[in-house]
Amino acid sequence: WHVQPKAVRSKSLSPDAHDSSSKSDGGSSSGSESSKDSSRCSTPVLDADRHERLREKMRRRQDSGDKWFSLEFFPPRTANAAVNLISRFDRMGAGGPLFIDVTWHPAGDPGSDKETSSMIIANTAVNYCGLETILHMTCCNQTKDDITGHLQKAKRLGLKNIMALRGDPVGEEWEEEVDGFNYAVDLVKHIRNEFDDYFDICVAGYPKGHPEAESYEADLRHLKEKVFAGADFIITQLFFRSETFLKFMKDCQAIGITCPVIPGIFPIQGYHSLRQLVKLSKLEVPQEIKDVIEPIKDNDAAIRNYGVELAVSMCRELLDSGMVHGLHFYTLNREVATTEVLKRLGMWKEDPRRPLPWAVSAHPKRRVEDVRPIFWASRPKSYIYRTQEWDDFPNGRWGNSSSPAFGELKDYYLFYLKSKSPREELLKMWGEELTGEESVFEVFTCYITGEPNKNGHKVTCMPWNDDPLATETNLLKEQLEKVNRRGILTINSQPNINGKPSTDPIVGWGPSGGYVFQKAYLEFFTSSEIVTALLKVLKKYELRVNYHIVNVKGQNITNAPDLQPNAVTWGIFPGREIIQPTVVDPVSFLSWKDEAFALWIEQWAKLYEEESPSRMIIQYIHDNYYLVNLVDNDFPLENCLWQVVDDTFELLNSPTQQ
Amino acid sequence: WHVQPKAVRSKSLSPDAHDSSSKSDGGSSSGSESSKDSSRCSTPVLDADRHERLREKMRRRQDSGDKWFSLEFFPPRTANAAVNLISRFDRMGAGGPLFIDVTWHPAGDPGSDKETSSMIIANTAVNYCGLETILHMTCCNQTKDDITGHLQKAKRLGLKNIMALRGDPVGEEWEEEVDGFNYAVDLVKHIRNEFDDYFDICVAGYPKGHPEAESYEADLRHLKEKVFAGADFIITQLFFRSETFLKFMKDCQAIGITCPVIPGIFPIQGYHSLRQLVKLSKLEVPQEIKDVIEPIKDNDAAIRNYGVELAVSMCRELLDSGMVHGLHFYTLNREVATTEVLKRLGMWKEDPRRPLPWAVSAHPKRRVEDVRPIFWASRPKSYIYRTQEWDDFPNGRWGNSSSPAFGELKDYYLFYLKSKSPREELLKMWGEELTGEESVFEVFTCYITGEPNKNGHKVTCMPWNDDPLATETNLLKEQLEKVNRRGILTINSQPNINGKPSTDPIVGWGPSGGYVFQKAYLEFFTSSEIVTALLKVLKKYELRVNYHIVNVKGQNITNAPDLQPNAVTWGIFPGREIIQPTVVDPVSFLSWKDEAFALWIEQWAKLYEEESPSRMIIQYIHDNYYLVNLVDNDFPLENCLWQVVDDTFELLNSPTQQ
Repeated sequence: WHVQPKAVRSKSLSPDAHDSSSKSDGGSSSGSESSKDSSRCSTPVLDADRHERLREKMRRRQDSGDKWFSLEFFPPRTANAAVNLISRFDRMGAGGPLFIDVTWHPAGDPGSDKETSSMIIANTAVNYCGLETILHMTCCNQTKDDITGHLQKAKRLGLKNIMALRGDPVGEEWEEEVDGFNYAVDLVKHIRNEFDDYFDICVAGYPKGHPEAESYEADLRHLKEKVFAGADFIITQLFFRSETFLKFMKDCQAIGITCPVIPGIFPIQGYHSLRQLVKLSKLEVPQEIKDVIEPIKDNDAAIRNYGVELAVSMCRELLDSGMVHGLHFYTLNREVATTEVLKRLGMWKEDPRRPLPWAVSAHPKRRVEDVRPIFWASRPKSYIYRTQEWDDFPNGRWGNSSSPAFGELKDYYLFYLKSKSPREELLKMWGEELTGEESVFEVFTCYITGEPNKNGHKVTCMPWNDDPLATETNLLKEQLEKVNRRGILTINSQPNINGKPSTDPIVGWGPSGGYVFQKAYLEFFTSSEIVTALLKVLKKYELRVNYHIVNVKGQNITNAPDLQPNAVTWGIFPGREIIQPTVVDPVSFLSWKDEAFALWIEQWAKLYEEESPSRMIIQYIHDNYYLVNLVDNDFPLENCLWQVVDDTFELLNSPTQQ
Repeated sequence: WHVQPKAVRSKSLSPDAHDSSSKSDGGSSSGSESSKDSSRCSTPVLDADRHERLREKMRRRQDSGDKWFSLEFFPPRTANAAVNLISRFDRMGAGGPLFIDVTWHPAGDPGSDKETSSMIIANTAVNYCGLETILHMTCCNQTKDDITGHLQKAKRLGLKNIMALRGDPVGEEWEEEVDGFNYAVDLVKHIRNEFDDYFDICVAGYPKGHPEAESYEADLRHLKEKVFAGADFIITQLFFRSETFLKFMKDCQAIGITCPVIPGIFPIQGYHSLRQLVKLSKLEVPQEIKDVIEPIKDNDAAIRNYGVELAVSMCRELLDSGMVHGLHFYTLNREVATTEVLKRLGMWKEDPRRPLPWAVSAHPKRRVEDVRPIFWASRPKSYIYRTQEWDDFPNGRWGNSSSPAFGELKDYYLFYLKSKSPREELLKMWGEELTGEESVFEVFTCYITGEPNKNGHKVTCMPWNDDPLATETNLLKEQLEKVNRRGILTINSQPNINGKPSTDPIVGWGPSGGYVFQKAYLEFFTSSEIVTALLKVLKKYELRVNYHIVNVKGQNITNAPDLQPNAVTWGIFPGREIIQPTVVDPVSFLSWKDEAFALWIEQWAKLYEEESPSRMIIQYIHDNYYLVNLVDNDFPLENCLWQVVDDTFELLNSPTQQ
């Protein structure tokens, strides 16, 4: 879909600035260089990936023979579609793409702050989904200032890669603008002039030659110009036969193009989408494909199966040629066909190895982030949002005067935090009508057990947990069910772990050969009656259990020594320092509790009419319950937190207490 | 021995500056405040002690009812005596004094850089022995500039406490000097004027009144002046009856002196020292003491036993009174009597709990030091010396450009690093005449086993280890013996530990309730033949074992990823972050190897004549051997480093290798 300039131009190509700076921060030393920048305690380089720019990642994967793939998406039309696309990013991101890219739609106000703009979708992918992302950008019919403004904004948002394109002509025929950007190469040069080596730049290649180009050869020369102007790699237009790409690649090499050339793969997903695409791109579908498709054109499943088959065999030929190290997929924002092709090629990461227990963000300034409070474990996007203005990521010491404060989470309906379930569905899960605190206990219990509620609906999310119970939390399911039934309304927990291999499929993270550890953690809302008994019980566990108990009115009880953070997840790896990515810290807990209490109102109470009994029940809980966190410090022993809860109920039920 | 001004003076006493600033950094919050100063990753406050000033430590110990003691020493006359005194500091420091103090001898050039000066002895105590130290300072017969110079130097060296004294008159009779310092109170005021609240100030109290004072009452008023001028606490002159002190204390309180008053205890150690002391201090020995001593005056042991008995019962009376929280001992630089008294009082720490695996330094700027390379484990004074110019203590990342380099250890005979054994003794231990590399192997082996060498001498120290084998190393004794016999000349090692309680008597450290861990470590010199085989063997252990192999010519082979440090000792504590006080890091290993190789020559080869065969053998080892360190990353499994060595010898002995 990318249009390439017609005219061959022969301005002096001076890639020096680009090359010299790429030398200085290229290569495998960039990881250690970036740790030099700061004397603070940053996470040892666990995953070189995190410190490399995209072109370095490509080079490293190519050098190690580790084939990769990438995924192209276009911006959605509606805010709801955007929410769904973000979930798709999360799901497809788990398969391990090297990057994703987001196309630029000049008609859709692509640089704006709208939820559906290219800029904001790419921003969300980088910052909230942690995906390496390329933002497309077209240059025709735009002023230099506009483009510079877009690029500055992209940089500010943490985007590091641009796909530089000409864009489609406004009218039928292409006309050169004086003083404007007429060709993709102009945009490449502009980026290098204005932003030096900050961005990695991708340009488009046309295996059959651009439809508007004078000739295949002329088009190759245009491509070489773009590369020499500073592009780092090439992604091609789709094609239908592997020979087409392999010939193109040889021709590129023959003319002196040495940067990576990545084939664009289009798994045929339906008759009509294929026709439309072909029309837009002015490509010709080979007769042998037409012959198969025409007879089954009304059978979507059959066409998709054929498309997958075709893509798999073409990809295999490409990979087997030894000339192809990565595959770029035109997903059309759909999941099934691309995922299927990748799975059949064995390139889909079935068991994604986590570099840290939480998903790292792809914003360059967050490269040094090495620890997070456990509280936002189920709401990482909220945590990232609330710390987006931070320039520095303190090592767990959020109370330090040198550290910035958590930002307010004013809008609980930021689109990427929006619940994927509409109001009616939430009401079915959480109760059309609440009859008392017990009906709230039941909702929590059903969420834990996965059993349907009394109206037959499964509770698959909660205000504090947008997804079903994590596999790890499943380890605690039985005990969690028991305590939720009795009004210990759990919203976060982890089991203790005493040195499991870092490759453990459930609790493992980090490189192999290491050992991971956890202290048991339990966080819940509960009534003041239970808190009173709990505090008495906790005296028996004084050294062993750290607690922090707060309510919405500002009561604040903790035995944390000097308000220090307590490391609750850590890992020991060969040849590394200790890594402690998750802490329970008393200072950020106070920011979290505001959010945690507000979610009762914003996500749950507001489902009901004002003054309705259901709403008043939630309001009562919000106003009167406490938020409690407990850490069992004795990680090598059996988790004592269940005993603490049992003791509490025993005390409540004892005659003296009555 | 401190002399107090005669004249009562009534200058306006304005303790404001002192009091207000003491408010701002007093109290228990100072620990957390100091961590605020820096955004770097500093050790969580494990031991509040480390961040408190002396007066705060006293207050905390008093509040918690935890009785303490302190020890007074005078500067030695010769460099050899200084070396012995420093060892005594180390030994007596292990008993857990709250502080030591070093007297000021105006005749001995006390502020100079001589090894025997008060200043340098106090500096050594603080910086190299890690002891909280008070430096005495007298003011009479000195200019303001001289005194300011001494104080500036003391501050620069990291001394934080001054005992402000008048000093003895030059002639027989005391004469006031115009414009000079005539009284201790002048010195107190001067310190507060020039150094604000930097120093904690101690002054002397006289339970019987100063011999030159007009009256006991007048002397009490002088004392009050000193306190109101800014002194933080009082140490008294010695006395012979507990009533004397208790009356004095009540009188102090009655007159409005509220700061701590610490009784000075003098265990009688001999007839002559007692007589001399009495003469100097113009005190009268009670008749009942004279009656016991006179008949046994030639029996040193009997007098010392009596002195200990007397001191113990007097100290018991003082402590039982409830008015005394700490005891100050006039040691006369001797160990036995004071140690015995403290042991009998149950105040000598028999099992010193270590806040970190290595002894922390008492220099205020090293308060944030939280990690050291393992290499200097047996030479901590050398490490401190070589990092004394550092203003910042990097978290194990010695290769960072922001970190300073290790200082040269030019003089291997710095007095506090000097071997306590004279040349003849070293020759007996290490061999009068070496006959080959095997005789060197034998010396190492004897050091490990503790068995006498073939000439019947035990090897109690080595150039790299000034003391006999550590208790912890004893755990590895059998294997160490085996490998040393075969030419793996070990100089440092630790066993792996998989979560022992932090209170473990051998490997424990840090507060109770925690767990400590270690990776197995082995460091040795060995021949190039063995290194060649070892490198082949290490291929089998690639992920499990990190190695670093260097020689004096600059060969440098390591598999450390990105030259990152490897944490080899760490601890997990209730409510804290992870603490990793010991690392193996490739960058500082290169500084250490220069020192480790140089010790062959400086401490061993130079025992022999130039060109002698013995010297040439050591020189050959220095020139041709490699220094190797190995870390077994799999700390939960059995230490594999012995297997690595066995495999190496097996390979060397296999026919194909031959």
